Amino acid sequence: MSAGALAQLNAEYARAIDDDRLEDWPDFFAEPCLYTITSVDNHKRGLPVGIMYADSKGMLRDRVTALRQANIYERQAYRHIVGLPAILEAREDGARTETPFLVVRIMRDGRMDLFATGRYVDVVVDLHGTPRFRERVVVCDSSRVDTLLAIPL
Amino acid sequence: MSAGALAQLNAEYARAIDDDRLEDWPDFFAEPCLYTITSVDNHKRGLPVGIMYADSKGMLRDRVTALRQANIYERQAYRHIVGLPAILEAREDGARTETPFLVVRIMRDGRMDLFATGRYVDVVVDLHGTPRFRERVVVCDSSRVDTLLAIPL
Amino acid sequence: MSAGALAQLNAEYARAIDDDRLEDWPDFFAEPCLYTITSVDNHKRGLPVGIMYADSKGMLRDRVTALRQANIYERQAYRHIVGLPAILEAREDGARTETPFLVVRIMRDGRMDLFATGRYVDVVVDLHGTPRFRERVVVCDSSRVDTLLAIPL
Repeated sequence: MSAGALAQLNAEYARAIDDDRLEDWPDFFAEPCLYTITSVDNHKRGLPVGIMYADSKGMLRDRVTALRQANIYERQAYRHIVGLPAILEAREDGARTETPFLVVRIMRDGRMDLFATGRYVDVVVDLHGTPRFRERVVVCDSSRVDTLLAIPL
Repeated sequence: MSAGALAQLNAEYARAIDDDRLEDWPDFFAEPCLYTITSVDNHKRGLPVGIMYADSKGMLRDRVTALRQANIYERQAYRHIVGLPAILEAREDGARTETPFLVVRIMRDGRMDLFATGRYVDVVVDLHGTPRFRERVVVCDSSRVDTLLAIPL
Repeated sequence: MSAGALAQLNAEYARAIDDDRLEDWPDFFAEPCLYTITSVDNHKRGLPVGIMYADSKGMLRDRVTALRQANIYERQAYRHIVGLPAILEAREDGARTETPFLVVRIMRDGRMDLFATGRYVDVVVDLHGTPRFRERVVVCDSSRVDTLLAIPL
């Protein structure tokens, strides 16, 4: 799997969320998958994930449905800035990568703030020529993560 | 057009602005060109661009001249962090891409703040072997854009 | 030296610092090397570097030892977001590049702030097939750099 393909996967993933095309989000994953959001402290100490856990595309879709019904996130927008992926292992049919990210939140009145930073710890697989996440563990740098419930990261 | 060429174009563009080489900025465009700055709300609703509009390199140059005369921007500096470009369509002679960006403003006293986030919606063409912007539509996430008049984004 | 190799070097460098693997940091450099942190004002005016200067891997290692003893940095974490490298000159055996960066600081209580922005002005060489920094001049946009003493950038 090429560095270009991995960069493109990351770019498309972030773009889907920031464009509010949340319904497209589960399709960036393989089935079965692992998607979790955790803090760096929990991740280091091997503690169970507190913020979000999904191990199938169905669970990701349920998450989107819940978000659409709650409508919480509508009052704000997000902008992901995804850094350069570090490729830890690359094979023909997949890769293990770590990619830093930063998310800015834009309130409806125009105010912006740093919402989250962290890294994606990923296992990417080749699905009939298309790279998809087998695992995406979102490790947030900050332990203040309550509000992270609002959107996928 | 390769992903590498597109990344290099984006890197050079941001570098020219952040180095305050504004006179080089129009040369990143093809002639004729389209350069606009708009907000995501206006962009979604198809409203006319409120912040900046130029459809020739001459208009871009006029803009730089105006900025140099006004001297407003001299009191601060900017840093563009450009994310991974999502390549929507790539042909031999050009590409359509969307690229997220974040701009930090650095005041003369050293204070920093988030100045703008958004995405570049681009049409890039090959100009005798060099990629240039045929269109660059700067869609800002925030509707607070008055101050954006200060520099090109 | 390929754009991919340069991107990977930058990604690994940032990752080592953000993972708090500071002991690995000197190994991203060739011997002898030049590593300095300066402000854009000093850099422009050719003034001597005020913040940090090292011209051997030994000096970089001493720096890490001092940091570990001082333990100052332990109370916070950092996240580097490294932008697209602009390749100024690329040869078979090396490259000159400029790469923008942004560093977010995450306090132990979860608060985040913009810690530093700037650009890396680099000379990269090929060391038996591995890219390493011969020179990394860290030019910070802000003149408020006292606190930069805390970690390598």
